[in-house]
Amino acid sequence: MNIKKMKQVDIKPNMTVIELLSSMKDGGFTCRKVAKATELMTEMIRDNECTTFLGLAGALIPGGMRNIIRTMIEKDMVKCIVTTGANLSHDLLETSGGSHYHGSEMLDDVKLKNMELSRIFSTLIPYDSFIKFEKTIQKVLQSVPTNRMSTRQLLYEIGRHIDDPKSIVRTAFLKNIPIFSPSIADSMLGVQSWLFSQTTPLFIDVLKDHSEFTEIIYESKRMGALFLGGGVPKHFIMNGSQLHDGLSYAIQITMDRPEHGGVSGASVKEALSWGKVTSDAKWIDVMGDVTLVLPLMISGVLSHLEKQ
Amino acid sequence: MNIKKMKQVDIKPNMTVIELLSSMKDGGFTCRKVAKATELMTEMIRDNECTTFLGLAGALIPGGMRNIIRTMIEKDMVKCIVTTGANLSHDLLETSGGSHYHGSEMLDDVKLKNMELSRIFSTLIPYDSFIKFEKTIQKVLQSVPTNRMSTRQLLYEIGRHIDDPKSIVRTAFLKNIPIFSPSIADSMLGVQSWLFSQTTPLFIDVLKDHSEFTEIIYESKRMGALFLGGGVPKHFIMNGSQLHDGLSYAIQITMDRPEHGGVSGASVKEALSWGKVTSDAKWIDVMGDVTLVLPLMISGVLSHLEKQ
Amino acid sequence: MNIKKMKQVDIKPNMTVIELLSSMKDGGFTCRKVAKATELMTEMIRDNECTTFLGLAGALIPGGMRNIIRTMIEKDMVKCIVTTGANLSHDLLETSGGSHYHGSEMLDDVKLKNMELSRIFSTLIPYDSFIKFEKTIQKVLQSVPTNRMSTRQLLYEIGRHIDDPKSIVRTAFLKNIPIFSPSIADSMLGVQSWLFSQTTPLFIDVLKDHSEFTEIIYESKRMGALFLGGGVPKHFIMNGSQLHDGLSYAIQITMDRPEHGGVSGASVKEALSWGKVTSDAKWIDVMGDVTLVLPLMISGVLSHLEKQ
Amino acid sequence: MNIKKMKQVDIKPNMTVIELLSSMKDGGFTCRKVAKATELMTEMIRDNECTTFLGLAGALIPGGMRNIIRTMIEKDMVKCIVTTGANLSHDLLETSGGSHYHGSEMLDDVKLKNMELSRIFSTLIPYDSFIKFEKTIQKVLQSVPTNRMSTRQLLYEIGRHIDDPKSIVRTAFLKNIPIFSPSIADSMLGVQSWLFSQTTPLFIDVLKDHSEFTEIIYESKRMGALFLGGGVPKHFIMNGSQLHDGLSYAIQITMDRPEHGGVSGASVKEALSWGKVTSDAKWIDVMGDVTLVLPLMISGVLSHLEKQ
Repeated sequence: MNIKKMKQVDIKPNMTVIELLSSMKDGGFTCRKVAKATELMTEMIRDNECTTFLGLAGALIPGGMRNIIRTMIEKDMVKCIVTTGANLSHDLLETSGGSHYHGSEMLDDVKLKNMELSRIFSTLIPYDSFIKFEKTIQKVLQSVPTNRMSTRQLLYEIGRHIDDPKSIVRTAFLKNIPIFSPSIADSMLGVQSWLFSQTTPLFIDVLKDHSEFTEIIYESKRMGALFLGGGVPKHFIMNGSQLHDGLSYAIQITMDRPEHGGVSGASVKEALSWGKVTSDAKWIDVMGDVTLVLPLMISGVLSHLEKQ
Repeated sequence: MNIKKMKQVDIKPNMTVIELLSSMKDGGFTCRKVAKATELMTEMIRDNECTTFLGLAGALIPGGMRNIIRTMIEKDMVKCIVTTGANLSHDLLETSGGSHYHGSEMLDDVKLKNMELSRIFSTLIPYDSFIKFEKTIQKVLQSVPTNRMSTRQLLYEIGRHIDDPKSIVRTAFLKNIPIFSPSIADSMLGVQSWLFSQTTPLFIDVLKDHSEFTEIIYESKRMGALFLGGGVPKHFIMNGSQLHDGLSYAIQITMDRPEHGGVSGASVKEALSWGKVTSDAKWIDVMGDVTLVLPLMISGVLSHLEKQ
Repeated sequence: MNIKKMKQVDIKPNMTVIELLSSMKDGGFTCRKVAKATELMTEMIRDNECTTFLGLAGALIPGGMRNIIRTMIEKDMVKCIVTTGANLSHDLLETSGGSHYHGSEMLDDVKLKNMELSRIFSTLIPYDSFIKFEKTIQKVLQSVPTNRMSTRQLLYEIGRHIDDPKSIVRTAFLKNIPIFSPSIADSMLGVQSWLFSQTTPLFIDVLKDHSEFTEIIYESKRMGALFLGGGVPKHFIMNGSQLHDGLSYAIQITMDRPEHGGVSGASVKEALSWGKVTSDAKWIDVMGDVTLVLPLMISGVLSHLEKQ
Repeated sequence: MNIKKMKQVDIKPNMTVIELLSSMKDGGFTCRKVAKATELMTEMIRDNECTTFLGLAGALIPGGMRNIIRTMIEKDMVKCIVTTGANLSHDLLETSGGSHYHGSEMLDDVKLKNMELSRIFSTLIPYDSFIKFEKTIQKVLQSVPTNRMSTRQLLYEIGRHIDDPKSIVRTAFLKNIPIFSPSIADSMLGVQSWLFSQTTPLFIDVLKDHSEFTEIIYESKRMGALFLGGGVPKHFIMNGSQLHDGLSYAIQITMDRPEHGGVSGASVKEALSWGKVTSDAKWIDVMGDVTLVLPLMISGVLSHLEKQ
C-alpha cells in the first residue's frame, strides 16, 4: 500500500478560506473530507461532459443557505435540481416578504405558539410570514397554465411569475435550470396548490416528472450529484442514475447514520451495489451539518472556479 | 417539584416482555422512554375518540417490520397510514415472490453488484426480486381504474387486486384502513406506475390526497400519531394536524438528531409552537432504531390490549 | 455467497423475552444485532476457557442498570470489570442511602440548582444524596489500609467494608471479581479519596493497575469483552488485549459514531488492525442506548443460561 | 420577545475566514453556532480575569489538530490543559520521529494488521512509529525525578526533557502552562511509565492532581473552558468548577448525543443544575467533528486577536 504521511493542519491570522481548506486537507477525519469534497465538487463542475444534479433536503433556508444555493445556480455549478417542497416554500416565503428569525432551541414552545411564532430548532417564523406566503402563492398560481403539469413545469411557471432576484426558484427559471419536487404535495406549497385547485383546475402530474427527468438523464454523457441531506431528492436522483450507468461523481453531506438502513444516512458506497454509482466513481461522504459544511465548501469552489 | 424515586431495572430468567417493560419503566433514559411509549400507545389506541395515524419512513421491511405493521392494522391499532413509496414497494416485492436476505454492511459493494445483489446496510435484495416485483405491479395496474386517482385510491385498488394475506397493502384494504403516499412518485412503485402510464392512462393526483386526508381529519374527534422515522409521512401528518387542534397524542421513534433542523430529527416538542401538537398533548420522543424499539413496544401493546 | 432468506419479525401477546429475541433474529439492522449479541454473549460465557471482561462507561446507574450489572457478577457472566469512577460513585451513592430520581430533560436547570437537584439528562440527584455518599466514603476509607494500592485493591477494600447486598462493588468483592478504575481520580470517589488523603495517608498507584491487570491477562487462555459505552474502560481492556493475542469475543454497545476517530465510537473491526481483536474473533457492534439494549440482552442471556 | 431577522449566508470568491465566519453568523443552526463560538472564545481569551481551561479528548492528533492546539498555547489562548493520555501519546509519537498517515476507513483491517499498520478511522499509524515512541519515552523517563509526582509534574518534566518545538507537551512546558492527565494510566504513555516503573521507581500520584488543580481554581477570579470532545477532561474540569462558582464561559464541541446521559454528550445547560456553570454564564454547544470546527474557529480567533 502506498500511503502518504499526514501533516498537521496549520492556521494563521487573516488566512483565506482557500488557504484554510488547503491546510485542512493535511488533517484527518471530517477536516480532510471537507477539503477533498471541495476539490471533488470543483472537478465535477469543470467536467463539461458531466450533468451535475443537486439534491436539496432538510431545513436549508431556515439554516441560511438560500444565497449559497442561488449562487450555485448563477455560477453554473449545477444543471438540475431535485428538492423537497419545504425548501421551495421557505424560498418563496422570503420572496413574499416573509422572514426567518434568529431564536433558540431552548425557547418555550407553548409561549411561542401564543406569540404566533413557529420554531425550526433555533429558527423562528412568524405566522404573519405564512400569510404573506399564502397570498403570494395564490396570486402567482392564477397566472399559471391550468393543464396537467409536472412539478418541473409548475416550478418553471412560478419562477416566471415572481420577481425576486434572490429567489432560488426565480434564478433557476432565469438560468433555465429545471427543478423537480416529486414530494411537492407534502409542503406548504403543496397545500396552497391544493387549495387553489379547489376553485381552479390545477393538476400536478408527478409521474410526468419521470418522463422529463429521464430525458435529462438520457441526454447526459456523465452524471454527478451533490446531495445535501438525503430524503426524497437523494432517492429520486439515485433511482434515476440507474437508468444511466450510475453517478460518476457523488458528494453527500448528512448528519444521519447508516445503521438503520434509511436512505438519508446510507453511505454512497452502498449505492455501488445498486449500480446507482459507478464502480470507478469518485465519491465522498461528509458527516456534518450542511449549514456548516456548505458555506466552507462552496466558498472554496467559487475561489477555485475564479482561478480558471 | 414532586419527584419520584427511581428503582433499578430488574431482570429474571424466562420473563415476559410485559414484565421486562414494566421493570424498564423503573430505569432511566431510553429504557424508561420505551416503557412509557408502550403505555402511551396503549392509551392512544384505547381512546375511542382518537383517530390514530401511523407514519412509516425508513427501511422498515428490509429491517423486518412487515409483520408487526400488518399486525397493527389487523388489531385496529391504527386508523390511517401515511408512508413513503419505498415501504409499499418492499411490501409488494415480498407479495410478488421476491425476498430480502441477511447480509452484512461490510460486504464489497462492487462484488455485490456483480452478483446482482443490492444492499440496504446489512440487508440484501437480488435483482431477480425486483423483476418479480415489476411483473406483478404491471399486471396489477391493468386491473386498476384509469381515472384520476389519489394515492389512497391507487393503493386501495392495488390492495384489492393482490392476494397476499401477509401484505400491508392487502391487509389495509381488507380492514378499510386508508394508506396515503404523497411522495409515491419517488419509489420503485412510482417508477412502475410511470412506465405503465406510458401505454395506458393512469393519473396520480397528489393534490387529491389533501382532500381525502382533510376529510379524515375533520371527522376525527381527537388525533394521535405514531411516527416511525420521520420524513414525508411525519411532515404530512403534522401539517394535517394543523387543520385540527393538533395531535393529542404523539410518539416518535427516530435516530435522527434535531440540531440541523430537519423534520425527521425535530423534537415533538417543537411541533407545539406550530400548533401541530396540542399544548396539553401526551407525547414522547424515543431515540432508537425502529427495528429495535418497535418489536418490543408493539409486543407490549398487544399484551396490554389482550388484557382488556 | 451463501446468503439466507430473511423472515419478518413476529410478535404475539404475552410472549417471553426469549421468544421475542428469537423472532428479532429474523429481522434486520439493530433488531437482528441485539438478538445475535445475546447469543454471542451466551457463547462467550459458556466458553470456560474465556476470561470475560466487562467495560462500564456512561451513566449506567442513573440509567437504571445497577441491578443488571450486579446480576451479571452474581451469575458469573464476567470475570473482570473495568469501569469509570462515576459508575462506582453512583453505586456507592445508593449504598449510602442516596437516591436517583425520575425527572425530565426539559426541566429548568437554574430552578433545579435552586432546588438542590443535579440533572443527568432525565435523571435527578438531590444534593443531600451526595452528602450521604461523602459521609459514607469518608467512614469507609478509615478502614482501608494506608499503603500504596492499585485501584483494584482500593475497590476490593471498599467492597469489604460496606454492607449493601445490592452494590456492584460489594458483590464483586464477595464474588472475588476484580474491579479496575484507571481514571478513578476523575470522579466523586476520586475527590473523596483525595480529601481523605489530606489528613490520612492514602496512595492510589494507577501504574500498579497495569501489573495486576497484566497478570489476569497472562492467566487467560482466551479473552472476551462486553463493552458498555466506550471511554477509558474500553481503551484499557483493548490495550491489555494486545499483550495477549487479542480478544476472541467482543460485543460493543454504544451510541457514539466512528467518523471522528474517538475510541467510544470506534468500530470493533478497527481493533483488528491493532491486534486488539483476533482476526478470527466473533464480534458484534450494536448501535443503541445501553439502557435499552442491556436489559433485553441480559434477560435473554439469563434465560439461556438457566436452560444449561 | 425581541427577535432579530435572519439574513442568509453570503459567500464570494477569495474571501477570508473572518469574512466567512461573519456571514455564517447570519445563518442558522450549526453555521451560526460556530460563528458565535468563535466570538465567545475571543471574548473569553480577552477577559484578563478569566482562567481558560482546555479539555482535550478524542483522536485530536490523528485528526490533524496538533499545530492548532500548540498555537493556542503559544498565543496565550489557554491557561491550563486537561487531556486524555492518548493525546499526549500521539503528540510524543510525532516528537519521537513516528508519523500518522492518510488511510481510509474502508481498508481491510486484517490486511492492515499484516502490514503492521494500526487504524484510527481513516488515519494509519505504522507499528514502527510506536517503537520509536517507546524508545524515546523510556529515555526521557530516565531524566525524570523518581519521587511521587502528579501527572502535571510528570508532564512538565517530560516537556523539559524533549526537544521538539512542534510538541504540545514541550510548548506547554516552555509557556509554563500546566497539563493534567488524570486518566494517564490508560494510554500508551501510561503503559510506558508502568514498564519503566518495573525497574526504576516512578510513582504517579493522581490524587495529587486534585491538590494542584484546586490551587489553580482557587487562584482564578473567573473560570472558562473550551471542551473538545468530552470524556475525562470535560468531567475533571467541570467537577473542579464546582469548587469555584462554576464556569463563566463554556464552549463545547462534540458529536456525542445527550439522550443516554453520558458526560461527553451532556449539554452545557445541564451543568447549570450542578453549579458547574454559573446561572449567568455565556455558553454554547456546537454539534460537530472537532477536526472541522476547530480549524475554522481558531483561525477566526487568531485573526480577531491580531486586531487587538
